[in-house]
Amino acid sequence: MAGRLTRRAQVARYGADGPPTVREDSLAVEEPLEIRINGRSLSVTMRSPGDDFDLVAGFLVSEGVIHAADQLTSMRFCAGTDDDGLQTFNVVDAALSADTPPPDVSLERHVFTSSSCGICGTASIDAVHKAAHFGQLDDESAWSQDLLGSLPDRLREGQKVFDRTGGVHAAGLFDSSGTLLCLREDVGRHNAVDKVVGWALREGRLPLAGTALQVSGRTSFELVQKAHMAGIPVLAAVSAPSSLAVEHAQSAGMTLLGFSRGGSFNVYAGSQRIS
Amino acid sequence: MAGRLTRRAQVARYGADGPPTVREDSLAVEEPLEIRINGRSLSVTMRSPGDDFDLVAGFLVSEGVIHAADQLTSMRFCAGTDDDGLQTFNVVDAALSADTPPPDVSLERHVFTSSSCGICGTASIDAVHKAAHFGQLDDESAWSQDLLGSLPDRLREGQKVFDRTGGVHAAGLFDSSGTLLCLREDVGRHNAVDKVVGWALREGRLPLAGTALQVSGRTSFELVQKAHMAGIPVLAAVSAPSSLAVEHAQSAGMTLLGFSRGGSFNVYAGSQRIS
Repeated sequence: MAGRLTRRAQVARYGADGPPTVREDSLAVEEPLEIRINGRSLSVTMRSPGDDFDLVAGFLVSEGVIHAADQLTSMRFCAGTDDDGLQTFNVVDAALSADTPPPDVSLERHVFTSSSCGICGTASIDAVHKAAHFGQLDDESAWSQDLLGSLPDRLREGQKVFDRTGGVHAAGLFDSSGTLLCLREDVGRHNAVDKVVGWALREGRLPLAGTALQVSGRTSFELVQKAHMAGIPVLAAVSAPSSLAVEHAQSAGMTLLGFSRGGSFNVYAGSQRIS
Repeated sequence: MAGRLTRRAQVARYGADGPPTVREDSLAVEEPLEIRINGRSLSVTMRSPGDDFDLVAGFLVSEGVIHAADQLTSMRFCAGTDDDGLQTFNVVDAALSADTPPPDVSLERHVFTSSSCGICGTASIDAVHKAAHFGQLDDESAWSQDLLGSLPDRLREGQKVFDRTGGVHAAGLFDSSGTLLCLREDVGRHNAVDKVVGWALREGRLPLAGTALQVSGRTSFELVQKAHMAGIPVLAAVSAPSSLAVEHAQSAGMTLLGFSRGGSFNVYAGSQRIS
């Protein structure tokens, strides 16, 4: 898969003064991945190629379909070629164990029901809340302020694709001694988290007690939900959380950090884990 | 709708040294919006509340469902209340004109077909390509280097919510004299663009010939596609484009700028519009 993560392109650079100059630049590759379950198409996501089995596995954890490695009996790239006859590696077919219910239509937030208007507000909220695999997180891991403050730099050090393109997000999983367990980059920040979670599932590590996930961007409701579904007690972001991210972290028993830069950070939930 | 865009929260600030201090902070509000067409639920998206009719209209343009104001005969908030009995304003029901085909299931990238594996690669790409309302863009508007270099600052000046929260994206539509036509902020960068496009549709301005859209983040394939669907010839971003963003801009006849900061920028496609 070498060379699939970045692509060279001719770029015209317009400076503050003088004529434009043409130079070569690296672009982060973005391609669609179609996810199939038992041969049925479930979803198409735009992603950085590579670690696709991790992405599929993590997506299924995040969406509430699976929570243990043995529920995913196989994954394979479906044969497919582009206009030049090259294998595209853009379709993954996953098989679930016999006792794992396949995802239903609402997985895609595509409910196509006509429920009565009286429950509209509740229904739309329900559509985005998934049943947590591991319940409320009562993980008692302890995290030093110094260690948490160092995670953004440790994440940044591991970002190989960002260095070349400036165009990808990253998610890094750390234990409470500060050891980096897994780092994934992707043009989509949700995908980067799914790839980490999928790696953990395939390694038999779920729930991820005693870990912290450092992400490069902001924290939305969905990112908090993905960490919660994987049992990750500490989620830290370089930028701001949304209101619903904070509310969900509080109700899930998670520790949520934001604006983590230069050794300083804000804590929006779960400060009892910080020593 | 005052007060719905930000919410106050207690935050513990951990500095590089000294004990943490508790202070009040503003969070960008994130809530789900359910979009219904003729009473049928189509999609749930996480967004900043406000300009919801613009969001729904722009979403339908981006997804290839409508391209003119008269195809959208009405929009209304569906009654719904939260646990405290307050109206949530989180469901919008839109009605299409009789001659507008309602969206089909593939709108949701939820195809649920079992096409033969031989066409996998092509099928997954096809799933993300929408038929362009206005074809390839042959717009002949001319843009000065100075004006294009000034757009990020002009956008930043208009970002009211970002100033308070640091947690939202923005999209601003400009004409070739540099006049700001419309600016929208949202926790989701796709939503910010949809809100601008929806505003334009409702104002009867599509296709948006002679305009440039400046966005705060990176450019993905989807953002380029949204601009293309609205007929916007120039798309400029503060950060990097992906490979597929560049390819799509080139094939759509669009001008694509990236890394637009401090008056400098890179041009990845369509430099003939820059004077």
